[in-house]
Amino acid sequence: MFTSRPIAFIHSPYQVTSAIPKGPGARHIAEGTIELLREFEAGLTDIEGYSHLYVLWEFDRAQGFDLIAHPPTDGGRPHGVFSTRSPRRPNPIGLTVVELIGRDGPSLRVRGLDMLDGTPVLDLKPYLSSISPEQLRRGWIEDAEKRSVP
Amino acid sequence: MFTSRPIAFIHSPYQVTSAIPKGPGARHIAEGTIELLREFEAGLTDIEGYSHLYVLWEFDRAQGFDLIAHPPTDGGRPHGVFSTRSPRRPNPIGLTVVELIGRDGPSLRVRGLDMLDGTPVLDLKPYLSSISPEQLRRGWIEDAEKRSVP
Repeated sequence: MFTSRPIAFIHSPYQVTSAIPKGPGARHIAEGTIELLREFEAGLTDIEGYSHLYVLWEFDRAQGFDLIAHPPTDGGRPHGVFSTRSPRRPNPIGLTVVELIGRDGPSLRVRGLDMLDGTPVLDLKPYLSSISPEQLRRGWIEDAEKRSVP
Repeated sequence: MFTSRPIAFIHSPYQVTSAIPKGPGARHIAEGTIELLREFEAGLTDIEGYSHLYVLWEFDRAQGFDLIAHPPTDGGRPHGVFSTRSPRRPNPIGLTVVELIGRDGPSLRVRGLDMLDGTPVLDLKPYLSSISPEQLRRGWIEDAEKRSVP
């Protein structure tokens, strides 16, 4: 077993999970802040140089897990949990790419949040490179998107 | 405090950290496998449809952390740990994008590993979208790359 602890908390517009955009075509453009705990603020040095960050966070309000998920993105069809972004995972860790808009001391202003207000953050990392669209296959998500377009 | 446990282990060619390519221009093309624990194998259902996966893993051989890191990528210059990929992080969780080559039951053949052989895996997620190169700024890493080209 490994242990982790919050280094920051999210301030987002989402108070309930039903408010978070989901499903085919959902766009994550919500703005908010990542509030570092003061003891970790020095770890942000030079972060302003990045346009995008990875946020690793804890689904702290999820309970238990399912190996087979039924994501709303695909009308309830079954998929392996590791093929989905379901919160009900063996280790309930979330991953979100955000755009870094600015920094005020321990507070990072970001765009692209898709987590609840008050969510604990475990780590921040620079987003350094992308897979090109030509190389990318997106499995059942692509099929679900095709089905959602009449 | 949050707890997590391995869902899988990495088989990679790297027995010691000094063998892992680092620094400007380092390419991660090592192949290996991600061996799911049998109890989690059902969670892989449909994963073959994806070309790339996020692997969240534990730096299980790192000890302690520094808020200011001195990455070899930049000749030892100081940077905040959250601006780096240093293993000495408050929560020693690693993140790697791998290309999925194939699957044999609980074993995923992948390319792009940059972690030690035997590393415990915490989660697998689909890689769904990229930030376009025109939108991406990579902070001090870009400066270090420019310095490394004579």
